[in-house]
Amino acid sequence: MTNSRTALASLSDDDLAGFLAEQREAYAALKGRGLKLDLTRGKPSAAQLDLSDDLLHLPTTTKDRAGVDVRNYGGLEGLAELRELFAELLWVEPSQVVAGGNSSLTMMYGTIVDFLLFGGVDSPRPWSQEEKVRFICPVPGYDRHFSMLAAFGIEMVTVDMHADGPDVAAVEALVKDDPSVKGIWIVPTYANPSGAVVSQEVAARLAAMPTAAPDFTIFWDNAYAFHHLTEDEAKSADILSLAAASGHPNRPIMFASTSKITFAGAGVAVLAASEANVRWYLKHLSMASIGPDKVNHLRHVEFFRDAEGVRAHMRKHREIIAPKFAAVDEALTTGLAGLGVAEWSHPTGGYFVNLDVLDGTASRVVALAKEAGIALTPAGASFPLGHDPRDRNIRLAPTFPVLDEVRTAMAGVATCVALAAAEKLTSDRAGGVGAEGDATTSDQSSAREGAVR
Amino acid sequence: MTNSRTALASLSDDDLAGFLAEQREAYAALKGRGLKLDLTRGKPSAAQLDLSDDLLHLPTTTKDRAGVDVRNYGGLEGLAELRELFAELLWVEPSQVVAGGNSSLTMMYGTIVDFLLFGGVDSPRPWSQEEKVRFICPVPGYDRHFSMLAAFGIEMVTVDMHADGPDVAAVEALVKDDPSVKGIWIVPTYANPSGAVVSQEVAARLAAMPTAAPDFTIFWDNAYAFHHLTEDEAKSADILSLAAASGHPNRPIMFASTSKITFAGAGVAVLAASEANVRWYLKHLSMASIGPDKVNHLRHVEFFRDAEGVRAHMRKHREIIAPKFAAVDEALTTGLAGLGVAEWSHPTGGYFVNLDVLDGTASRVVALAKEAGIALTPAGASFPLGHDPRDRNIRLAPTFPVLDEVRTAMAGVATCVALAAAEKLTSDRAGGVGAEGDATTSDQSSAREGAVR
Repeated sequence: MTNSRTALASLSDDDLAGFLAEQREAYAALKGRGLKLDLTRGKPSAAQLDLSDDLLHLPTTTKDRAGVDVRNYGGLEGLAELRELFAELLWVEPSQVVAGGNSSLTMMYGTIVDFLLFGGVDSPRPWSQEEKVRFICPVPGYDRHFSMLAAFGIEMVTVDMHADGPDVAAVEALVKDDPSVKGIWIVPTYANPSGAVVSQEVAARLAAMPTAAPDFTIFWDNAYAFHHLTEDEAKSADILSLAAASGHPNRPIMFASTSKITFAGAGVAVLAASEANVRWYLKHLSMASIGPDKVNHLRHVEFFRDAEGVRAHMRKHREIIAPKFAAVDEALTTGLAGLGVAEWSHPTGGYFVNLDVLDGTASRVVALAKEAGIALTPAGASFPLGHDPRDRNIRLAPTFPVLDEVRTAMAGVATCVALAAAEKLTSDRAGGVGAEGDATTSDQSSAREGAVR
Repeated sequence: MTNSRTALASLSDDDLAGFLAEQREAYAALKGRGLKLDLTRGKPSAAQLDLSDDLLHLPTTTKDRAGVDVRNYGGLEGLAELRELFAELLWVEPSQVVAGGNSSLTMMYGTIVDFLLFGGVDSPRPWSQEEKVRFICPVPGYDRHFSMLAAFGIEMVTVDMHADGPDVAAVEALVKDDPSVKGIWIVPTYANPSGAVVSQEVAARLAAMPTAAPDFTIFWDNAYAFHHLTEDEAKSADILSLAAASGHPNRPIMFASTSKITFAGAGVAVLAASEANVRWYLKHLSMASIGPDKVNHLRHVEFFRDAEGVRAHMRKHREIIAPKFAAVDEALTTGLAGLGVAEWSHPTGGYFVNLDVLDGTASRVVALAKEAGIALTPAGASFPLGHDPRDRNIRLAPTFPVLDEVRTAMAGVATCVALAAAEKLTSDRAGGVGAEGDATTSDQSSAREGAVR
């Protein structure tokens, strides 16, 4: 195949039939290979985890710099040294940082539980006492954000995710008059899955916009703040300062972690917010915990030494994963460029490639790939309740497999995309509903068993 | 002083005045020593923590026995090897065990949040939708249990803690007809602070009793299950089997941790319950976590090897702390035996000595000790809202200081107890309200800043 191809939709019926036959043959060959590959999960690979294996022998001491024994109870807000390190990385004050356990997701969940049961600093009452609570969900977005809200019975309203962040005009319109709109999820840096970076302008508008709810909260999930794929390193907008300057200091709550920096399951997570929010969070946390794993905090501080240590470490990750992202792009370009049946993102950071296929074929592509031994995140996973209204969005996660597997898997995915598109166009011309189109709409449960991140 | 003393209450006015003068002198001398000692906290000492320092170099591998990389995401229920180890220790099936983070308190809090927001397996509705939720709190008990309930707005009803567990007849009467009584806290083995062990008979009645609430839950906080101080090792009643046999399999939820086995702040916690309860717990946890710190799980499995490894390790703790408990008993006996102004427990395990002083003098004793540089847990801390109706209960925590400090501190405490009693009796005879009796009643906030465990 070459890149100077005609768009499928412009082909004559005969040529389309020829293309379909060709793709069926290619797909049969693909199936014949008996692959077993997995692109579902935003997980670091073994080689990436190896970068942090020195953690297994740390810490070398058991006292923090104040002389306190990190092995014992206490220190609810986390090790001072670690809070300082993250404060520098996130451009906040150490007093604005809480260092917790191994999961920022757990901190997000705990924060929403606090809002539900107790209300926030600026809440007139606990959210559980509101008639209705709604959240704005930029799409495509992170499935675990959405399933968490669904579990809490919080209603989700979608807005489009653009290259510079959520459609901020749509957000402004939603929050202006409706006090039941209490929050928004944002992955500001190299968003999951689009790779978008929230611009300074969008961040400033989100920070300043009038909201009917006095306790409207931006859940600023900065999961990929330092996860650059090129030398052109994105800088996260300083949402805490912007919000404070706009008179809404308690509006944003930021989350980050080392899950994709050190060990995915054994890293450290942080929350950063206004000092009033930090006090509020710690007050409720004090009922649930005597303190985080400070040994693991010190282990990370010794490992990184300082913020520059984190940045240097991330460059090693980049060396491992940037070629995998290049392989995704190469395979998609080779297989699909010019056909007019797919668009995909070219992220400069983060963990995902966003693939939009021909409307109505995403579920079919995922099903075809599965039959050929290539596991993809369920179609629709990046939408609330797993429902992509156009059935076109697929999230690709190339970090976990080794490079050769990424190449093989993505060539296969390209075949599936082309085949599903040819089927769909053929069926559309025949006025049918899909030749082999028994693709089931993915639902919430299938979305949930999907991607880890 | 000798042990063949006359009870203070039987002394003539003159003899009492003489005793009071003597104690004032002793107290002045005590103050003059400028001590700075701390018996507030149920924390392991540095020597105890040292026993587990091999953890700092573990694990030696990064794969579990199934070949899964423990550094990565996943495994919500915890490492299979660790669940098996705890299953053996707690006489349950591995499928009944969830291994979590560093804190059983966090698991307890999360469990109550689940009941509040979603309801339990046998709940007709979420507890937050009930008009009123009440818990039975055996007293004296663990202050953090009580402050957690207070934070949730759950009403607390006290029953007495006896040598064989909570006053079970009183519990039966409370749960029989009132569906708002949803739960009870129990520390079944070497209870905090009394050291009581729930007998098989009491456990069986708790498991079998009819309850008006279909989802009445026993929060079985087995924090000291393996924390023996003598060779006469208490065996926890097998509450899960008892409850299942009585047709109430989901009634008990057990909690335990290695906080006082390995590192207080960096151990592992577990929850054990019926398989239905485990599924319920994991379903909600799956919204908040991708998995626990499995590296720390494997670290602990390598360290202990097996259940017998835990038991052997606990014998080393016993060697360190049993002499401290003996020193407490010796100092109290030397200072107070025969005076009729104090009773104290002789625990065979756990972390505390329960000291009951003359009614109305506990706050005064704590204040006197504080002035003399000896920090004690605030009076009343072992009661809901920090309110001990008889103002007589003091919790002593002798594990953290070194042995010599325990001796010194406890001799000082004995002096304070004797002085406060002599003051009180003198004042009572004079018809007054307390000579120097400006003791403030401890409140919830002072209780909270008190003992760590």
